[in-house]
Amino acid sequence: MGTKCIGVDVGGTAVKIGLFEATGDLLQKWEIPTRQEESGKHILEDAAASILKTLEELDISLSDIRGVGMGVPGPVMPDGYVEVCVNLGWHDLYPERELSEMLHGIPVKSGNDANVAALGEMWQGGGKGYDDIVMVTLGTGVGGGVIIDQKIISGKHGLAGEIGHMHIRDEETESCNCGGVGCVEQVASATGIAREARRKMAELDIPSVLRKAGDRVTAKDVLDAAKAGDELAGIVMEVVGHYLGLTLAQITMVVDPEVFVLGGGVSKAGMFLVDAIYKHYDKYTPISKNKSKIVLATLGNDAGIYGAARLILD
Amino acid sequence: MGTKCIGVDVGGTAVKIGLFEATGDLLQKWEIPTRQEESGKHILEDAAASILKTLEELDISLSDIRGVGMGVPGPVMPDGYVEVCVNLGWHDLYPERELSEMLHGIPVKSGNDANVAALGEMWQGGGKGYDDIVMVTLGTGVGGGVIIDQKIISGKHGLAGEIGHMHIRDEETESCNCGGVGCVEQVASATGIAREARRKMAELDIPSVLRKAGDRVTAKDVLDAAKAGDELAGIVMEVVGHYLGLTLAQITMVVDPEVFVLGGGVSKAGMFLVDAIYKHYDKYTPISKNKSKIVLATLGNDAGIYGAARLILD
Repeated sequence: MGTKCIGVDVGGTAVKIGLFEATGDLLQKWEIPTRQEESGKHILEDAAASILKTLEELDISLSDIRGVGMGVPGPVMPDGYVEVCVNLGWHDLYPERELSEMLHGIPVKSGNDANVAALGEMWQGGGKGYDDIVMVTLGTGVGGGVIIDQKIISGKHGLAGEIGHMHIRDEETESCNCGGVGCVEQVASATGIAREARRKMAELDIPSVLRKAGDRVTAKDVLDAAKAGDELAGIVMEVVGHYLGLTLAQITMVVDPEVFVLGGGVSKAGMFLVDAIYKHYDKYTPISKNKSKIVLATLGNDAGIYGAARLILD
Repeated sequence: MGTKCIGVDVGGTAVKIGLFEATGDLLQKWEIPTRQEESGKHILEDAAASILKTLEELDISLSDIRGVGMGVPGPVMPDGYVEVCVNLGWHDLYPERELSEMLHGIPVKSGNDANVAALGEMWQGGGKGYDDIVMVTLGTGVGGGVIIDQKIISGKHGLAGEIGHMHIRDEETESCNCGGVGCVEQVASATGIAREARRKMAELDIPSVLRKAGDRVTAKDVLDAAKAGDELAGIVMEVVGHYLGLTLAQITMVVDPEVFVLGGGVSKAGMFLVDAIYKHYDKYTPISKNKSKIVLATLGNDAGIYGAARLILD
């Protein structure tokens, strides 16, 4: 059996690829552009060609590779079927079978990219050393991944870990992209935090550094200002912390993980964000004496290739 | 390896015991009283003695028994440790080890009773044929159990599946037994439904058959009246259906099960209750084209012995 494995993270603009020792050491990483033309039919061909070329350059035989794991930006069914990946142009395919054929039959296993990133953080990132983690990725949207006993919970319809679309805010009136109203993503994504700041600037008659940016205010502006003691930004972060704390509490009542791992651009706010969430999390988990920890992701954009590589090691 | 197994469901007033074929056929069931005196120290002795006596009567050798599973009314840690079971007087023990010693070293495995009941419904009840189910037990309180890939998700602190204590109702002002406010249990348990009926009778000036019972109104009164078209009871069930639908939707976003199995006394309302929940569940899961099914539990009070027996078959 090979001592190495490969992780492929298929994104809308680039396909990231990492070559790993099965022990978790990253040997080499690179990326190629994602060709979306012709319903994305060249994406896997390009990835396979790039993998074979790189292995040749490194003088590594395919027989040294235990397998290839792959994260894709959409729901993946338990049998590997992908109905649609909007960002790639993909419809109705079994990407793991296709890539395996292109790589001379080497084992390939795929998963949803957010779930795979969670597995990566469990393996070599913020969740290292834990078996049961829930990752919450706070980026443009809010994604998630649930790992129990070192395995991804994918869900019957490939929709487990869709934490961004839990309904948690009854008084919301605008619709979320998903068609729902009051989703986590609407308040805790970078977009959501900026929107909440615009609302609070309009509602409250409080001076704030955020008013300089006005409607172009960003989540980073809000986090920086809140850390610096800006009152209005603090009020926004209180709302964000409240709803994220509630969300994590609800997840705790369902799967009771060891740690929550926070990733994505918003998580760059660090312990300030963790603290803003924790006090509300604590309040909403009264039955648990032993709360889950909340930690920060450490792999950044590499979580996907780590997790994809880990996927094939089971 | 033995062809039979035993399930023990340890409750506050009785210990239920079932002898099963490993295929799932129930051969015999019986129960003994739960002796709570002296911190419940006799409970396992009594159960062991009763099991040995019954096997002798049936002329079945211990070597025919693959093992004994046990549901206990409290959190069970992954290593079998039980810190406390209030209903039994138990503190600081490893019940599975103790029972195993009393049964000449036969394998014993324990789990939280609500989780174990969920496993029973998956094995031979309403969830039969499915690998991923979430059971919601609507009784005096609200309990739950999460089964993924035919295994119980127990949680790091033994608190997974504590669905009754998800916070889902912001406008609630009374406290739940757990110390929280706005828990599922406060609106969807039998107690919660009766309380909601008392509130609506006080708030609304609508005639209703429920007013005859007044403050002694029960959940069954509400369900019967709602089925019969009583307007006020219908309003109460709309509230209950709304919050249960929201709860199931949130669980779907975390683990995306194949089916929800509804059990407990309130679930005797049958498809009327399922329908009341489903329309709200549907609304709160906009991203999922393929919703989870909602079905009724079928094993009643025997779910615990079935699930306990199934526990030892892994």
